Amino acid sequence: MPDPSWKLSPDRFFDPEPTQRRIARQLYESVARLPLICPHGHVDPRLFADDDASLGDPTEMLIIPDHYVFRMLYSQGIPLQALGISRRDGGAVETDRRKIWQIFAEHFYLFRGTPTGLWLAAELIEVFGIDRKLNGHTAQDIYDQIAAQLATPEFKPRALFERFGIEVLTTTDAATDTLIYHQAIRDSGWQGDIRPTFRPDAVVNISSPGWHQNIERLSEVSGVDVHNYATFVQALQQRRAFFKDMGATATDHGAESALTGELTPLEAEAIFQRALAGRADADDARRFTAHMIMEMAGMSIEDGLVMQFHVGSYRNHNQPLYDVFGADSGCDIPVHIEFTRSLRPLLNKYGNDPRLTFIVFTLDESAYSRELAPLAGHYPAMRLGPPWWFFDSINGIIRYRQAVHETAGLYNTVGFNDDTRAFPSIPARHDVWRRVESNWLAGLVVRGIIDEEDAAAMIVDSAYRLAKAAYRFV
Amino acid sequence: MPDPSWKLSPDRFFDPEPTQRRIARQLYESVARLPLICPHGHVDPRLFADDDASLGDPTEMLIIPDHYVFRMLYSQGIPLQALGISRRDGGAVETDRRKIWQIFAEHFYLFRGTPTGLWLAAELIEVFGIDRKLNGHTAQDIYDQIAAQLATPEFKPRALFERFGIEVLTTTDAATDTLIYHQAIRDSGWQGDIRPTFRPDAVVNISSPGWHQNIERLSEVSGVDVHNYATFVQALQQRRAFFKDMGATATDHGAESALTGELTPLEAEAIFQRALAGRADADDARRFTAHMIMEMAGMSIEDGLVMQFHVGSYRNHNQPLYDVFGADSGCDIPVHIEFTRSLRPLLNKYGNDPRLTFIVFTLDESAYSRELAPLAGHYPAMRLGPPWWFFDSINGIIRYRQAVHETAGLYNTVGFNDDTRAFPSIPARHDVWRRVESNWLAGLVVRGIIDEEDAAAMIVDSAYRLAKAAYRFV
Amino acid sequence: MPDPSWKLSPDRFFDPEPTQRRIARQLYESVARLPLICPHGHVDPRLFADDDASLGDPTEMLIIPDHYVFRMLYSQGIPLQALGISRRDGGAVETDRRKIWQIFAEHFYLFRGTPTGLWLAAELIEVFGIDRKLNGHTAQDIYDQIAAQLATPEFKPRALFERFGIEVLTTTDAATDTLIYHQAIRDSGWQGDIRPTFRPDAVVNISSPGWHQNIERLSEVSGVDVHNYATFVQALQQRRAFFKDMGATATDHGAESALTGELTPLEAEAIFQRALAGRADADDARRFTAHMIMEMAGMSIEDGLVMQFHVGSYRNHNQPLYDVFGADSGCDIPVHIEFTRSLRPLLNKYGNDPRLTFIVFTLDESAYSRELAPLAGHYPAMRLGPPWWFFDSINGIIRYRQAVHETAGLYNTVGFNDDTRAFPSIPARHDVWRRVESNWLAGLVVRGIIDEEDAAAMIVDSAYRLAKAAYRFV
Repeated sequence: MPDPSWKLSPDRFFDPEPTQRRIARQLYESVARLPLICPHGHVDPRLFADDDASLGDPTEMLIIPDHYVFRMLYSQGIPLQALGISRRDGGAVETDRRKIWQIFAEHFYLFRGTPTGLWLAAELIEVFGIDRKLNGHTAQDIYDQIAAQLATPEFKPRALFERFGIEVLTTTDAATDTLIYHQAIRDSGWQGDIRPTFRPDAVVNISSPGWHQNIERLSEVSGVDVHNYATFVQALQQRRAFFKDMGATATDHGAESALTGELTPLEAEAIFQRALAGRADADDARRFTAHMIMEMAGMSIEDGLVMQFHVGSYRNHNQPLYDVFGADSGCDIPVHIEFTRSLRPLLNKYGNDPRLTFIVFTLDESAYSRELAPLAGHYPAMRLGPPWWFFDSINGIIRYRQAVHETAGLYNTVGFNDDTRAFPSIPARHDVWRRVESNWLAGLVVRGIIDEEDAAAMIVDSAYRLAKAAYRFV
Repeated sequence: MPDPSWKLSPDRFFDPEPTQRRIARQLYESVARLPLICPHGHVDPRLFADDDASLGDPTEMLIIPDHYVFRMLYSQGIPLQALGISRRDGGAVETDRRKIWQIFAEHFYLFRGTPTGLWLAAELIEVFGIDRKLNGHTAQDIYDQIAAQLATPEFKPRALFERFGIEVLTTTDAATDTLIYHQAIRDSGWQGDIRPTFRPDAVVNISSPGWHQNIERLSEVSGVDVHNYATFVQALQQRRAFFKDMGATATDHGAESALTGELTPLEAEAIFQRALAGRADADDARRFTAHMIMEMAGMSIEDGLVMQFHVGSYRNHNQPLYDVFGADSGCDIPVHIEFTRSLRPLLNKYGNDPRLTFIVFTLDESAYSRELAPLAGHYPAMRLGPPWWFFDSINGIIRYRQAVHETAGLYNTVGFNDDTRAFPSIPARHDVWRRVESNWLAGLVVRGIIDEEDAAAMIVDSAYRLAKAAYRFV
Repeated sequence: MPDPSWKLSPDRFFDPEPTQRRIARQLYESVARLPLICPHGHVDPRLFADDDASLGDPTEMLIIPDHYVFRMLYSQGIPLQALGISRRDGGAVETDRRKIWQIFAEHFYLFRGTPTGLWLAAELIEVFGIDRKLNGHTAQDIYDQIAAQLATPEFKPRALFERFGIEVLTTTDAATDTLIYHQAIRDSGWQGDIRPTFRPDAVVNISSPGWHQNIERLSEVSGVDVHNYATFVQALQQRRAFFKDMGATATDHGAESALTGELTPLEAEAIFQRALAGRADADDARRFTAHMIMEMAGMSIEDGLVMQFHVGSYRNHNQPLYDVFGADSGCDIPVHIEFTRSLRPLLNKYGNDPRLTFIVFTLDESAYSRELAPLAGHYPAMRLGPPWWFFDSINGIIRYRQAVHETAGLYNTVGFNDDTRAFPSIPARHDVWRRVESNWLAGLVVRGIIDEEDAAAMIVDSAYRLAKAAYRFV
């Protein structure tokens, strides 16, 4: 029995009502081929450091590194070992890539109607030209087809970067990173615009695993001997300057809560010394992070780096799984977040200063209309980031605009970012955004809420201009 | 003036756009006549214990036992006495069933566009063949029509059970219940599949009204003299084994919060002794419940009973009304619930074990996308129950899929349950689910998110297979 | 280059699907010209006190008093000084009204697809006959057109009041207000029905800025020497009676949280004395407000004034901006609100009494389906107010009905209020409500959820009758 031929609808994600669909298609076509602005993501810069870097085999490209994928498989009882996820203790895991691929294919139905399913389908169909639906029967043939292509020059990362029409791609890098792959890209003469992002969580959050080593490493790479709060700040300033020299336009900060608040210099020093001595407690960590977020906003006003703030993820919720497989095993779970009172210290001190761009991301959608849109719709410095993580999805985008737009408008948001480590999924992710946004605007047009002239401008802003401007890619 | 004829649209609850409507109808027709799986509900098993049991008169069938109905009437100023709701003190209430019915009919407009209104209309039209809209004018004629039918053999509960196509129906029963009506059903030789569910809240929650009597009763029915924590656990194990023998495949647990957490054996014993001595406080109760939820998960792994957890209802919010009319008077009100931190102890200990099926229900929809879908989309043991209580409604189901599906997928959910004590409303409730789900999937098809082949499989899973599998009806 | 002609779609805000649109239009046409009931708002009564009062120039009519407007402009970096907003210290701000208007027009694109944008467009097009889109090019011509009309008798407030078809308009007035403009309206013989609303926050909330002066003023205007709790209550009773004599049918109360709870007479007296002595703390203020909300409910049962309760706004979030420009500068930000436990004391004491109408408003939409609809769907005294402030918008209204209707029904809600100080925007605001509600009901009809007969009744209830009945305009 032949598998049904597999293809994507040219009108996918558009409402079926013919007038709205027609307008959505027009809007989409006006932006479908615009270059991709990728201002926040987790692609490994090594992929671009030399011409020969490769995406690996189909399993190591699509499954092993992608916690969006193996999370779902795990939820249905498939052990991570069987998917080839490395154990921290180096214990045995499945190494037969075709066997892993087979399991994945047999369970591909789990992703029906999910963003991961849509991205994977788009990658397979549009990037790799697969024309039969992935399932247990077609698994091995499709593996062969992808593997064959991955061996060709057209499927090297640099070639795909150009084929995808990426105008700029940023990575996310620890404060202690020496950015050697970024340097290698520069040195290679290749013209792809790839930039680092300064992510200092591992040194700023004094309860991070390995904080002491991170601080030692910070001393090393910054050339500043970090032994107190003042030298800690100096070292961070050195790293920010270095990142900026290497092309960074932004920083990124993650925290479980949105708390901000300044310590006195004495308090900051006392907590830092307790941390160095290994005697800081949870409250110290919480207050120090709240303080450092403020410090970073102050530094951003000085050096012009855009500041991103991602909050609301309870990391490594599944302790037994974390113990075996470590971080990023698919068990980060969102929590309720308070923004109005928590961000007030920062916004009162820096939020009225238009030199600052402070972009906030949430995993708690109930705050969109209640707290975040009103805040972004008032403070000149604040912008609201696109729907993040679980909400980078068709309904996630729809809910975002429904909840945010009427209060914050379009221009207090910053377009899209793909936030992915799965490089070949980038075009699919931007395509979902561009289609869903086109359909949103078409829906406003057919309801007489905006006119076609406004919609034509807004779709370009949403798909391209806002991200470029907010992240200061000039 | 003739009343307009009353009928149900054959395309009800489907989107009006013709393509989506056509696909929705096809999907619906493929499942409309599948048997009904009813894995969670509150129908009185006595109705099936012998061939002659009856649903009573129209008022005692549709109004008096249904807090969904009289809640709304009460909210508009109609006293519960006037609706024949019994007082705890045995004081006078309206006994004229036709008078109560008249009030109900005159206020039937209050239910316009509500699920209760839709269920009642479907019952009246489809089960009882009523063809004029219920209002003050038609009230008494319709009462006569229903009463006449209820007197016939075709409207005995067992006959309706068969006519409704119920494959399996579960009741909800206290841990101390001797299940005599379930035994009577078995003994009668009637083939209807009716099973108990083990609901131990009244003995597990040490602050329950009447807890001491409940514990005495537990000793009696279990044959275990419950005098300390160890014997309490033994008695519970005895009851679980008994329920399982009687056909139970599941337990059900209700709590105001989602808190879980283990006590040490010494702590458990100490709290239990304080409870026996009447000296336990609110904190004891909270911690003991949190502990017992963990214990029950452990027992479920042993005995294979599916574990249901319903949280978030502030019971008996209206103290003056509760004082007069007792529990289930329509004044249970939801509260905000935290799941991520609260469920962590249980999920860390048992959530990675695929032998456990742990189904969670919420009255706080803001947790769907933020906490529950991510948890159900990760832990192998956890599933998310269908929209519960106030959310068993057209928009409730729509919001549920919109918020949950993209993160948890279809296969970490468990289909539908009707959760009702109103036996004749069962087909109407499943019909709403099947129609709304058909329309949801049709919406995905016309938007190119899934294909028709996937939709055809998913609707059968949603309408029938998932509930059957999750509750282990084999 | 000519500007595109600017007009409103006659089918605006209706779904594009033709059947739904046709029914929506029919429903809308049945209520489009019904009189406007305006039971809650902030229009200055001075506008109607004499025949010659004027709306001022275009800038002082549309921009300066409207924090919905200048909030958005400020969020994009335009200083409030540049918009002519007065400083508390009397410092210089822009006084050139045409220059302010030009800035506004150049940034009018910020309001694309927002309710403020829709209201402004409707005002300009329908009230002032503007036919070119407002932007930097058309700004001055449009200013001229509006200014010319504002100088004519047809654009005096009283003339517009009649042209708009306002049946009744209420203002919001401090407890200490002598209502001289309301008296002037009465004395003038003009027949417009304009009524005060009793808003005692500034004397009830002991942490209000200027509370001591407010209490002195209360003594003055009430004729009761307020020196202890008993005389405080007497003075409030005097003011309520005075407001009622002046036509008031309602009171309004604002609080950051929904907390209610009675103090003992001794506690109330003790806190009141601490407040008089300037020694009350934040906890005193919180408990006193919670108590006074209860007292006010009790007084409402006595005097029949409808009680409104608006909660959830963190006032003056932006301290530096507040320090310069004072209250109502666009920096009030919502916070998460708990209702179930917080309202219980009040609802348990007064909520079962149908003499009370207690209307609750929220800025936390997550409470709609979880707490507010269940409460309003149970307690006879409680009603849920329409979507407030940021949620008085197309999507805000849609979300409100989606989340509330299935639990609370239509008849536990109270229709619409415009809540505005922008008098010329009143028709546009009611028109949005009437259109969105028509479309909501049409959506229910085409989905077979209600029939056309029900929809025809419900739209009149929503657009007119419910507000009139709830606020006891007889």
